Amino acid sequence: MKIFLVYAHPEPKSFNGALKNQAVESLTELGHDVKVSDLYEMDWTHYLGKKCYTEIENKDFFKPQQESMGKKFIEPIKKEMEKVAWSDLVILQFPIYWFSMPGIMKNWVDCVFARGFAYGGDVGILENGGFKGKKLLISMTTGGPSMFYSKEGQFGEVQRTLFHIAHGMGFFCGMDSLKPAIWFSPARIGQEAREKMLKEWAERLKGIENEEIVPFHHTKDYDENTYQLKKGLKTNLEILGDF
Amino acid sequence: MKIFLVYAHPEPKSFNGALKNQAVESLTELGHDVKVSDLYEMDWTHYLGKKCYTEIENKDFFKPQQESMGKKFIEPIKKEMEKVAWSDLVILQFPIYWFSMPGIMKNWVDCVFARGFAYGGDVGILENGGFKGKKLLISMTTGGPSMFYSKEGQFGEVQRTLFHIAHGMGFFCGMDSLKPAIWFSPARIGQEAREKMLKEWAERLKGIENEEIVPFHHTKDYDENTYQLKKGLKTNLEILGDF
Ligand SMILES: Cc1cc2nc3c(=O)[nH]c(=O)nc-3n(C[C@H](O)[C@H](O)[C@H](O)COP(=O)(O)O)c2cc1C
Ligand SMILES: Cc1cc2nc3c(=O)[nH]c(=O)nc-3n(C[C@H](O)[C@H](O)[C@H](O)COP(=O)(O)O)c2cc1C
Repeated sequence: MKIFLVYAHPEPKSFNGALKNQAVESLTELGHDVKVSDLYEMDWTHYLGKKCYTEIENKDFFKPQQESMGKKFIEPIKKEMEKVAWSDLVILQFPIYWFSMPGIMKNWVDCVFARGFAYGGDVGILENGGFKGKKLLISMTTGGPSMFYSKEGQFGEVQRTLFHIAHGMGFFCGMDSLKPAIWFSPARIGQEAREKMLKEWAERLKGIENEEIVPFHHTKDYDENTYQLKKGLKTNLEILGDF
Repeated sequence: MKIFLVYAHPEPKSFNGALKNQAVESLTELGHDVKVSDLYEMDWTHYLGKKCYTEIENKDFFKPQQESMGKKFIEPIKKEMEKVAWSDLVILQFPIYWFSMPGIMKNWVDCVFARGFAYGGDVGILENGGFKGKKLLISMTTGGPSMFYSKEGQFGEVQRTLFHIAHGMGFFCGMDSLKPAIWFSPARIGQEAREKMLKEWAERLKGIENEEIVPFHHTKDYDENTYQLKKGLKTNLEILGDF
């Protein structure tokens, strides 16, 4: 498989760094092709705005979704698009920051998942999105322990926190989600427990090609006129929560 | 009231720009003190990392949450912290980007809501957070129409999308949320409908001081040992959804 690992952590010696290194090592050993974007090392300061384009068509009224259709992106963004286009599987490796991904990675998504490439224009959405046929694997560490991330816990279900990424960013553009890998509180457990997690990660990656995907609803499951789920179907949120 | 408006949109002539201008005009007329951070104009490229600090205590192993406790932030971050500290109400004005805030604003939160200032260390969390006594108002525009943002709709409930901001970023640090202002599909409706929205916004802002707050659970509502909600209580997600 062609695997593109996008990694965002400010410290190479962190547990996120270890998970990234483990993935590169394991996946390479297994014979996969691996590319990595280390957003901190790249000093990814791009955010979605005029500077993303080499030329602006409508200088009077900047509309990012329209400018994106012209495909005149600056080189750093083009390179990331090429890596996404190349890949069969995208792995996002990050520490949870404020119940989402770090801003540096969010900026990367805002810039790279452009209209006309990821979705929109001639490209569809959901199972017809620009990234159809690709898979997405979220690998996220937390500060809070797992009991905080339950339905009745202070933070609410972790799967619901990830819904805006797995469904909102991934499946919206056609990427099928694998089960998110959540690594609770690596900084609060001992070295031994962290090594056990790394082994688990290596173990899981062995079967990565044949994993089940989260069965989010396809277009046919929505009413054509109201865009509401047809009667009796579980919501996507429930599907992710139960997966 | 002291009101701090944080605004993130790449085009001043956008509807987001109009909402921002309307808020500044209305709130000033009403006698409030208003400060604005226009993140695009400021070219906010800071993300949480070593460059946020004037000095790093642990050069061998960078831990942002620990470095933040030293309070040696660079000037641009200090200035934003001062504006938050000064304010009674923070308004976040942004277009929804990938079911969350734009990356440029997420980076702002990652940098400014620092440990030891917003939460953690001597500072508590939830109703004892660093921002207790302050209020938060999310004012967000969307591309998708409201029917997409229902429970059975393709995007799921919009309140659930906002939960990671209202509860995760705001109430986690002690900020009470006002009802989010959601402006559906301004780009798809006519000029007249947009002007009606701006009037609604101006109207709402007249009573901003006396609005009800979202009654998220306080510490006492959680079991002391398991950190789970006490039996029979609605979850925070349901509370926000019903508000
Ligand atoms: C800006 C920032 C925001 C954070 N937000 C959260 C959060 O929302 N939930 C959580 O459980 N931990 C949060 N944390 C803690 C980190 O997720 C945690 O330290 C990290 O996942 C541990 O992995 P590491 O050892 O590789 O750094 C936050 C940390 C920082 C610096
Ligand atoms: C990078 C990017 C991501 C977007 N993501 C979403 C989204 O998740 N949901 C949605 O309804 N609209 C989305 N949109 C559309 C914008 O939210 C919409 O154009 C904006 O809110 C309209 O306000 P404006 O007229 O002030 O630009 C996105 C637009 C861009 C450029």
